[in-house]
Amino acid sequence: MGTVALLSDEEASAEALAVFNEIRAARGTAYVNNFWRALAHDPALLRATWDRLKAVMAPGALDPLVKEMLYVAVSTANGCEYCVHSHTAAAKAKGMTPEMHGELLAVIGMAAQTNALVTGLQTPVDDAFRK
Amino acid sequence: MGTVALLSDEEASAEALAVFNEIRAARGTAYVNNFWRALAHDPALLRATWDRLKAVMAPGALDPLVKEMLYVAVSTANGCEYCVHSHTAAAKAKGMTPEMHGELLAVIGMAAQTNALVTGLQTPVDDAFRK
Amino acid sequence: MGTVALLSDEEASAEALAVFNEIRAARGTAYVNNFWRALAHDPALLRATWDRLKAVMAPGALDPLVKEMLYVAVSTANGCEYCVHSHTAAAKAKGMTPEMHGELLAVIGMAAQTNALVTGLQTPVDDAFRK
Amino acid sequence: MGTVALLSDEEASAEALAVFNEIRAARGTAYVNNFWRALAHDPALLRATWDRLKAVMAPGALDPLVKEMLYVAVSTANGCEYCVHSHTAAAKAKGMTPEMHGELLAVIGMAAQTNALVTGLQTPVDDAFRK
Amino acid sequence: MGTVALLSDEEASAEALAVFNEIRAARGTAYVNNFWRALAHDPALLRATWDRLKAVMAPGALDPLVKEMLYVAVSTANGCEYCVHSHTAAAKAKGMTPEMHGELLAVIGMAAQTNALVTGLQTPVDDAFRK
Amino acid sequence: MGTVALLSDEEASAEALAVFNEIRAARGTAYVNNFWRALAHDPALLRATWDRLKAVMAPGALDPLVKEMLYVAVSTANGCEYCVHSHTAAAKAKGMTPEMHGELLAVIGMAAQTNALVTGLQTPVDDAFRK
Repeated sequence: MGTVALLSDEEASAEALAVFNEIRAARGTAYVNNFWRALAHDPALLRATWDRLKAVMAPGALDPLVKEMLYVAVSTANGCEYCVHSHTAAAKAKGMTPEMHGELLAVIGMAAQTNALVTGLQTPVDDAFRK
Repeated sequence: MGTVALLSDEEASAEALAVFNEIRAARGTAYVNNFWRALAHDPALLRATWDRLKAVMAPGALDPLVKEMLYVAVSTANGCEYCVHSHTAAAKAKGMTPEMHGELLAVIGMAAQTNALVTGLQTPVDDAFRK
Repeated sequence: MGTVALLSDEEASAEALAVFNEIRAARGTAYVNNFWRALAHDPALLRATWDRLKAVMAPGALDPLVKEMLYVAVSTANGCEYCVHSHTAAAKAKGMTPEMHGELLAVIGMAAQTNALVTGLQTPVDDAFRK
Repeated sequence: MGTVALLSDEEASAEALAVFNEIRAARGTAYVNNFWRALAHDPALLRATWDRLKAVMAPGALDPLVKEMLYVAVSTANGCEYCVHSHTAAAKAKGMTPEMHGELLAVIGMAAQTNALVTGLQTPVDDAFRK
Repeated sequence: MGTVALLSDEEASAEALAVFNEIRAARGTAYVNNFWRALAHDPALLRATWDRLKAVMAPGALDPLVKEMLYVAVSTANGCEYCVHSHTAAAKAKGMTPEMHGELLAVIGMAAQTNALVTGLQTPVDDAFRK
Repeated sequence: MGTVALLSDEEASAEALAVFNEIRAARGTAYVNNFWRALAHDPALLRATWDRLKAVMAPGALDPLVKEMLYVAVSTANGCEYCVHSHTAAAKAKGMTPEMHGELLAVIGMAAQTNALVTGLQTPVDDAFRK
C-alpha cells in the first residue's frame, strides 16, 4: 500500500467523486486509476491536479502524443515508477509504435549521458546559447 | 572555468580535431561549442559521444524537433544548465515556436508535479499499466 | 532482498546490538526497522548514522513534527521509497493530520513544478535574493 | 540570460500585466521577481502558476513559514539554484531565524544522506510502515 | 512487468541474439540478465549500449572493480533500483569485500549529505578550484 | 553570494574557528574553502560535518583517491556544481591523471545512460541479483 489508502467511489467525498466522473467521461472508460484514488483524500488537491492536467495535455501547438512522450521523458529522469508506467501506457494508447518507443528511450538515455558528462566537466555555457 | 580547460583547434589532438571538423560539416557552421572542446581531452570519449549523438538524433520514427524537445525535457529534469541552454537553442533553430516552448515547459512542470505527488503518495502501479 | 541481508539481534555484532538497544529505548518499542538491520553490517556506519540522526531530529528551533515533514519532503524529491514510507509513518505518529499531509503533498508538488519551470527557463537569480 | 528574455511591464501582455499587479498587491511591493517576468511569455502558464502558488502557500493546516521551509527543502533536493535563493529569502522574511535555518539545513543534509544509504542498501520497506 | 516484455532467445531477432551471445561469451555464463532482454526490442539500441558498456568498463587507467563501484555510486545517486542491484552484484563478483562495501556506502552517503548542504547554502565556488 | 555570508576567521565563533584550524592542520594549508566558511554559521553542524568527513574519507579498505572519485561521481549525479569542482580538484591533488579523469567521466556518463534506460523500461530486477 501507499502512504494513504486508495478510496473507492463509495469512500470518496462528493467533490472527489465528481472529479472521478469527469475523468471517466474524458477518457471514455469506467476505470479510474490509482493515482486519483490516492489523491482523493484531499479533494481540493485532486480537483486542482485534474483540471490542470487536462488543460496542459490538451491538443495545442504540440500534439497529445508528443506531450505524452515528453511526460515519459521527465518521469524517467525523475525516476517515478508509477508515472513511467502510466504515461508509457497512455503514449501507446495514443499511437506510440515500438519504433517510436525505442527512439524515445534512446534520446532519454543519450540526454542523461551528456547531462552527466557536462556536469562532470562543468562546461561553461557558450555565449551563443544565451543571446 | 570547468574542471578541464576548453581545447582550441590548435591544442586538440588530430583525432579530436577530426571530430570537430565532422561537427562543423554536419551543422554547416565553423563554430564548435564548448562541450566538445572540453570532451576533447579524451578523444575516444569525444568520438564515442559524437558518433552516438549523431545516430540518436537523426530523423527516424520521431522527427528531429521532437527529439530536441525530449532532450530539453530530460535536461531540465536533470537540472543541467548547459544542456537546457544548448538544446533549447537547438530546438528553436529547428522550428520550436514560442507557443511550442510554452507548452513544452507546461508539460515539464506538470510532469514534475505529478511525479512528486505520486512519490509522496507511493501509489501502487495499476495492474492495467503492467499487462 | 536488498544488497545486504537484514541482521537479526543474534547475527548483529555487540556494537551493532548496542545501537539497536538505544533505538529501542529512544522509541519505546522493541521493534527495530529494516534500515538499521541492513546498516548493521558496518557497525561504525550504523553508530555514526544513529547518533547523528538522533541529534538532528531532536527538538530545537524547529519542532520534531516539522522536521519529520521536512524529511518527507526531501525523501520525496529524492525518490526514496523506503524513506517516504518510514518518515510519513513517523510524521503521522507525531501528529500529522490528513489535512496537514494533504498540504505537505501540495507544497511538495508545487515546488517540484516551479523548480522545473525555473530550470527550463534558466531564470537568473534576482539581485534582491542575493544581498 | 535565460532561455527567454525577462519581460518588462511594457513588454508584457495585458493578461500578464494583470498577474504582475496581483503579485504586487499580494506582497505589498512594486517589485516583481524574474521568475514571473520569464513566465510572462506564456500568459496562461503565468496565470495558472500564480493562482496555484497563492492557494498552496496560503495559511492552512500548516503555517506559511513551515510551507516556505518545505519549499526550500524540495528545491534543495532538486538542485534549483533560483528556488533555493528565492524561497530562503521568503522564509527569512516570514521569520526564519539563523537557528531555524541551521536546523533546516541539518535535516535536509541528514535526509539526503539516509536516502542515499537506503538506496544503496535497497532495504525493503517494513510491513509496519505500509499498514 | 516492465513497459516492454522481456524477450527470450527465441523471440529475439538475429541481431539481438548475436548480442546476447557476445554477452554470454564475455561473461562466461549462459545467463543473460533482464536489462538486455528488455533492450532487445530495439536491436540497434541493444548493440550500441552493449558495445559501449564493454569499452567503458574494460580495464584501463582505472581497474574494473573501481569502475563497478563508481557505477554503484552513480546508480545510487540516481535512485535506480535495478542498477544498484546489478552493479553491486557485479562489484562483489569482482572482489568487493563487505568492508569495501561499507566504505562505498559511507562515501555515497557523505557526498549526498554535503551535496545537499552546499546546495542549500548556495556556496560560491572558490577561485582556487577553478584555476 | 550564497544564502548566508561566508565567515572570516574574525567573524567565526571560537568553536567554528577551532574547526577551521583543524582543517588547516589536516590539509597542511592556511586556506579554508568557502563551504566551511558558510557552514560556520551553525558551529554544531560545521563540527559534525567535518568530523564525519574526516572519518569517512580516511584511508581504509578503499584508498583516498578512489574515495575522491566516488565523491565526484555522486556529486555529478546530484548536479552539485561546487562539489564537482572541489572534489575534482581534490582527486587531482591525490594523483588522478587526465586518463583516469577521462575514464571516471566515461563511467559516470555510461551509468547515467543505463540508469535512464532501465528506468524507462522498468525492467524487473533479476532474482539472481537478489539472492
